[in-house]
Amino acid sequence: MKHLLSVSDLTLESATGLLDEAERFEQALLGREVRKLPTLRGRTVMTVFFENSTRTRVSFEVAGKWMSADVINVSASSSSVSKGESLRDTAMTLRAAGADALIVRHPASGAAHRIAEWTADGDDGPAVINAGDGTHEHPTQALLDALTLRQRLGSIAGKRVAIVGDILHSRVARSNAFLLSTLGAEVVLVAPPTLLPVGVSSWPVTVSHSLDAELPGVDAVLMLRVQAERMNGGFFPSPREYSITYGLSEKRLGMLAEHAVVLHPGPMLRGMEIASAVADSPKAAVLQQVTNGVHIRMAVLFGLLVGTEEGAAL
Amino acid sequence: MKHLLSVSDLTLESATGLLDEAERFEQALLGREVRKLPTLRGRTVMTVFFENSTRTRVSFEVAGKWMSADVINVSASSSSVSKGESLRDTAMTLRAAGADALIVRHPASGAAHRIAEWTADGDDGPAVINAGDGTHEHPTQALLDALTLRQRLGSIAGKRVAIVGDILHSRVARSNAFLLSTLGAEVVLVAPPTLLPVGVSSWPVTVSHSLDAELPGVDAVLMLRVQAERMNGGFFPSPREYSITYGLSEKRLGMLAEHAVVLHPGPMLRGMEIASAVADSPKAAVLQQVTNGVHIRMAVLFGLLVGTEEGAAL
Amino acid sequence: MKHLLSVSDLTLESATGLLDEAERFEQALLGREVRKLPTLRGRTVMTVFFENSTRTRVSFEVAGKWMSADVINVSASSSSVSKGESLRDTAMTLRAAGADALIVRHPASGAAHRIAEWTADGDDGPAVINAGDGTHEHPTQALLDALTLRQRLGSIAGKRVAIVGDILHSRVARSNAFLLSTLGAEVVLVAPPTLLPVGVSSWPVTVSHSLDAELPGVDAVLMLRVQAERMNGGFFPSPREYSITYGLSEKRLGMLAEHAVVLHPGPMLRGMEIASAVADSPKAAVLQQVTNGVHIRMAVLFGLLVGTEEGAAL
Repeated sequence: MKHLLSVSDLTLESATGLLDEAERFEQALLGREVRKLPTLRGRTVMTVFFENSTRTRVSFEVAGKWMSADVINVSASSSSVSKGESLRDTAMTLRAAGADALIVRHPASGAAHRIAEWTADGDDGPAVINAGDGTHEHPTQALLDALTLRQRLGSIAGKRVAIVGDILHSRVARSNAFLLSTLGAEVVLVAPPTLLPVGVSSWPVTVSHSLDAELPGVDAVLMLRVQAERMNGGFFPSPREYSITYGLSEKRLGMLAEHAVVLHPGPMLRGMEIASAVADSPKAAVLQQVTNGVHIRMAVLFGLLVGTEEGAAL
Repeated sequence: MKHLLSVSDLTLESATGLLDEAERFEQALLGREVRKLPTLRGRTVMTVFFENSTRTRVSFEVAGKWMSADVINVSASSSSVSKGESLRDTAMTLRAAGADALIVRHPASGAAHRIAEWTADGDDGPAVINAGDGTHEHPTQALLDALTLRQRLGSIAGKRVAIVGDILHSRVARSNAFLLSTLGAEVVLVAPPTLLPVGVSSWPVTVSHSLDAELPGVDAVLMLRVQAERMNGGFFPSPREYSITYGLSEKRLGMLAEHAVVLHPGPMLRGMEIASAVADSPKAAVLQQVTNGVHIRMAVLFGLLVGTEEGAAL
Repeated sequence: MKHLLSVSDLTLESATGLLDEAERFEQALLGREVRKLPTLRGRTVMTVFFENSTRTRVSFEVAGKWMSADVINVSASSSSVSKGESLRDTAMTLRAAGADALIVRHPASGAAHRIAEWTADGDDGPAVINAGDGTHEHPTQALLDALTLRQRLGSIAGKRVAIVGDILHSRVARSNAFLLSTLGAEVVLVAPPTLLPVGVSSWPVTVSHSLDAELPGVDAVLMLRVQAERMNGGFFPSPREYSITYGLSEKRLGMLAEHAVVLHPGPMLRGMEIASAVADSPKAAVLQQVTNGVHIRMAVLFGLLVGTEEGAAL
């Protein structure tokens, strides 16, 4: 594998290999004072963010630096884009300036795919990692969610996972639905009809409009942030209705099975899609997700930049 | 000591220990071409700045890098804050992403304290350094000012230091007043009544409204920047009056004792609170303050991340 | 040589030495997985950009990091400038904070020169590299263009190079005109009279107003970006006229000699000053320029920070 653009790039085997690799990195670093491996020394990793995201950029930057890569941050606000340069020219320029990996966050669905096509040069060209493209995909988020579920539930196969909320605008929902399905989970999307994508009937999921009906039967709930910034007016339900109907309240937390897990990709809007007490409950794995994110990104960077050369899992 | 949140965390002994340590770092680097120590290799230091500050951020970044730490910059403009995330969640996320130290600049007084409480995990959790919180404290600034005074005056105990200007809005004034007092100096605040904080009578200082009356008797003058951005209209005196009454003019420079020192935390508004010729006079120690800032921050980072483990001074 | 402020700092010999050095760096890195030299370990390089520029900042950052320097980015938006600090005080502060090199991009012509004067301290003080000052100079751009021409054409001496477009507002044009002349090329500026600088008669160039007349006789064409942001209304010709008269269309590409090269400093406005098919044609060396930029900046940083001490070419 040369890029990580979509969870459809991942098979059960390769995804499991990445989860295992992430845990090997976690073990390798555990309890060490000096969290620094020489793995990617002399490799140049560029984060190219056309949308702001502290958590994702920091997570990749930590992952790169802990493996001794040179990490260079490029953000849209300081980019040549404002001078009228095309995305293709920006990407080709960063490749020519020495990028071994481009980690791309972009508001347009498909941006990372296009960049991977443009910058390919036979077998050469940088590894491209999709760090979120429009409403499309966010594969490392799905991997870190899967790792968290595996750690909390012991396994993923056969588990029932509800993805709740604004599925329509959520790349996290899409990537999780497909990856969890690949890993053998049963996925149910819980959302109002207005917040479901048109093609959802072709997804490997079932759909429900009632959170209350689903909660008792699931092993995990993945809450989504209400992406108000992706909605163009006329949004129904209103935020208040949304919160009442699809928010994970304390009362709803009580409806979950004892062993069930609550995930949220962050940033959380406490009081909106998740009650504050729920976010802080032992069932919530929000911070474990963040920590796993660093290890997953180490595994992905390692797999793309080094692993394949050595016949590693990825 | 686990954090550096306030100068009240510092005793005469521990503060002096930090000044000594800073000078050891200065000596260790002096005249070396390769300014790089392995001290913090594998430690992850994050600067988390919710207000802009080139000088403070750069100073910490240089300090961290010269000790081989991985330094990661997080700024408010690119942060999840704009997406409605709480400060607590931002801080917890950065901890979960691997921060060994969080260097926090925030417009709200008490922000760093709260972050230290939230991110504490028994004896674990990142070291939190307050790099300026609202109108409250800026302890590393006070330490670098103290180091500069000690170098210029030979000692601090018994010296008389005037802190001049907008005390009300100045975290630098507060941190300096208390730290210099701990170190045995006699501090006089020189300001109009409108620019003094309400509780100043409980500070270990005297108060004067006349700069001219104080200048001949002091060993050092610490000028403050007029923080127009912290004032909400109705500001009295007006900038022009302020400059006339509390600005350090060339004429006033002549009223100082031969050995007296002029400090300014920067950025300076030349012609406003300090005349340009004064800023460039040999009495001014402004650039020495900047250089000392790097060494102080090395000492603080070292003390918090390594020193205590080895029973060092801090 | 202590600074690189202008191509007038460069002789035929020293410029050729830098081109040679850049190619030695290219060779040293070629095909290595670990692109990391210890050359500048322990040196602190600060990019100080008062104008945005992804490509130039990234190029210097890559150059510095590949030589193991500590690279610190300072941008105007987060700088003390917004608090009213003078440019001189900003520069002196960065020197005092430990900068061995200041890489300066500034909208005012002469900014880097002034910073070099201010921060000089006998033979000490940081090396200052002009990374673009107003409409004045951009010497590392000229060096990377020269390297690209030498690689494509075999040599520079005796070659005829057309610099086309908005000469008036272009520091790239100025730096290239003088450097290429120093290196023995024959330079012709092709522009409308309104986009030529007043003093152009003293430049070592000829002037033409007809692109079509020049194309068959040149070995290289250097297209310039239309810097709309530098023009203050009343701009003649209009963008459309400009594109028709001075844009490098596919038809015009066909008028070039077989061996001729097309350069563009980027970011390109495809369809404006250069047709998309021209930018992607084998004659265009745009991406080679970017790659050469990294090697040139390695050579310049090395020459300024290390080379002179060892009697190297620079």
